[in-house]
Amino acid sequence: MTSITIYDIAKEANVSVSTVSRVLNDTAPVRASTREKIMSIIEKHQFQPNAQARSLIKKETGTIAIILPDITNPFFPEVFWGAENEARGLGYTFFLCNTAGDSNRESEYLSILREKRVDGIIFLGGRINLQVCPDNMAQELMDMSRHMPIVLVNGNIAKSGLHRVYTDEGAGAAMAAEHLLELGHREIAFVGGMKELSTTMVKVKAVQKKLREHGIEIPKERQLLGGFSIDDGKREMSKLLQQDNPPTAVICVNDNNAIGAIKSTIEYGLSIPKDISIIGFDDTPLASAVIPELTTISQNTYQLGKQAVDMLHDLINQGKPKKQNVLEPRLIIRQSTGPAAR
Amino acid sequence: MTSITIYDIAKEANVSVSTVSRVLNDTAPVRASTREKIMSIIEKHQFQPNAQARSLIKKETGTIAIILPDITNPFFPEVFWGAENEARGLGYTFFLCNTAGDSNRESEYLSILREKRVDGIIFLGGRINLQVCPDNMAQELMDMSRHMPIVLVNGNIAKSGLHRVYTDEGAGAAMAAEHLLELGHREIAFVGGMKELSTTMVKVKAVQKKLREHGIEIPKERQLLGGFSIDDGKREMSKLLQQDNPPTAVICVNDNNAIGAIKSTIEYGLSIPKDISIIGFDDTPLASAVIPELTTISQNTYQLGKQAVDMLHDLINQGKPKKQNVLEPRLIIRQSTGPAAR
Repeated sequence: MTSITIYDIAKEANVSVSTVSRVLNDTAPVRASTREKIMSIIEKHQFQPNAQARSLIKKETGTIAIILPDITNPFFPEVFWGAENEARGLGYTFFLCNTAGDSNRESEYLSILREKRVDGIIFLGGRINLQVCPDNMAQELMDMSRHMPIVLVNGNIAKSGLHRVYTDEGAGAAMAAEHLLELGHREIAFVGGMKELSTTMVKVKAVQKKLREHGIEIPKERQLLGGFSIDDGKREMSKLLQQDNPPTAVICVNDNNAIGAIKSTIEYGLSIPKDISIIGFDDTPLASAVIPELTTISQNTYQLGKQAVDMLHDLINQGKPKKQNVLEPRLIIRQSTGPAAR
Repeated sequence: MTSITIYDIAKEANVSVSTVSRVLNDTAPVRASTREKIMSIIEKHQFQPNAQARSLIKKETGTIAIILPDITNPFFPEVFWGAENEARGLGYTFFLCNTAGDSNRESEYLSILREKRVDGIIFLGGRINLQVCPDNMAQELMDMSRHMPIVLVNGNIAKSGLHRVYTDEGAGAAMAAEHLLELGHREIAFVGGMKELSTTMVKVKAVQKKLREHGIEIPKERQLLGGFSIDDGKREMSKLLQQDNPPTAVICVNDNNAIGAIKSTIEYGLSIPKDISIIGFDDTPLASAVIPELTTISQNTYQLGKQAVDMLHDLINQGKPKKQNVLEPRLIIRQSTGPAAR
């Protein structure tokens, strides 16, 4: 008897744990060819599920879910990509639940996922990014975590003790500010995001702190929050450009916003980075596809997804992973930033 | 007693049918505030589930699933957006399953979704876009459709009798060709896609047919298939530009490819549309965000998703929708196409 697990068999057969489980327990139909492949691998390794494994097999459904706010923002599909690849390697099948950041939908998904008995949940956006998360919403997540493992990505519920993986977004925003300072910029604006969201305010505060170290304040009229989409960035940037004294550099809350800001700037007849430098956040695939290519902060999205799944897998298997896993961001310098014109 | 249904209650309460069902049948916990809201609506309308409704409630899980190949291609999130909004309005909760077009993953999801007893499935990509779908894969879908309703979007399984909603992509490709002909182009190339996929070959053939009506052939070296990503478009376009006699216009398989082609063309020192016209397909949000803005073919993605859900809903409720629903594409003229230079 070898020490091979159901996960190894799933991996070798390139199927999910639930498929192997279905073959072993005969709980649901499996394609004949898939069944044969799994049985031959089981035979080859002389796999015999022991009592503990048997109970695990019965308990585990082999499916995990990711709850996230917006798949049309390319940041989230990138995180998902890392998560799904890792989950696949570990033998899980993945359900994706899109919430639009709406807490009712989050509640609904949490409830349904419990009913459908998934093995664990990765949670992004919505309530875990609120500056102040209402007690009932926080409680709901904590209650749920008693029934199944939950890992929060790039967010937090204060004092909940929930496991989480996140990029140090404040450090990333400070890097963006530092890069602009080194290029001689002193007239700097911040565009995008929402003041109710911690992920936005962490960035705003980190930029302010870094600039203050150099005696620079961002006046109110240069802090234009207003959303996360391309159109939001375009609209807010055009407001900045219509001011009497436009900034020489703009830090955007994400790449989508920065792409909108580039669009607006060029339509305004200005040149990037000669007249204005623009910097994004996330390093989505679009960042290197636009012209000029976008200077941005990489959040290591693939790693973020991967490590969230590793942590969840550990929790599902009664491991004791550390409560927090912090990833460092990186500055990616491309074409949209340059020396200050004044 | 009124003729109000569980769907109406779900809609008014802004929750899914499954949540209402959980309250009515007390099968799983529901947040107290949500329960109260639902109960007050039930009371207000004096809703009494009749026998048939009761059986429906028991049978239906209130969840539907969408199986699609690649959420990092913005076309699919756009379809999903239309589908999800409509599903939400009808009281469903949505699971998204990402397959990377891999038929093993498709099989796995089909099997798991059956096990999890979703009410129906919307299927995009993968096997339903193969020029030749292997019998066992076709059979699997047809078998599944005996257990739950399935709607195919922008694809088909020949002779399966499965319901489907699709855009007439051939008509769209012909529109793109016609637009270029009207601008005086005769040196036209086709970039992107894969020859194994019907969605690609439908476009290639429609372009060829339209051009032949004007005595023009696309030579082999101007048919550069090679994938669906931005990078694929960039790479294939640069091959075209290195040829002795580059074309004056390029039709790309999708917007991602066209954005890559624009990137490559500008890096090559050429001007769009003065030197080369580029046209995309899908009208994703990126099309109007790039510079120059992309001329493209709209697939009415939102409608595509919406109508797929309407058809599925009809099937779930034992309706008899017509087997096919065809949407007409539209030409969206922006800045990336202009008169032929020669």
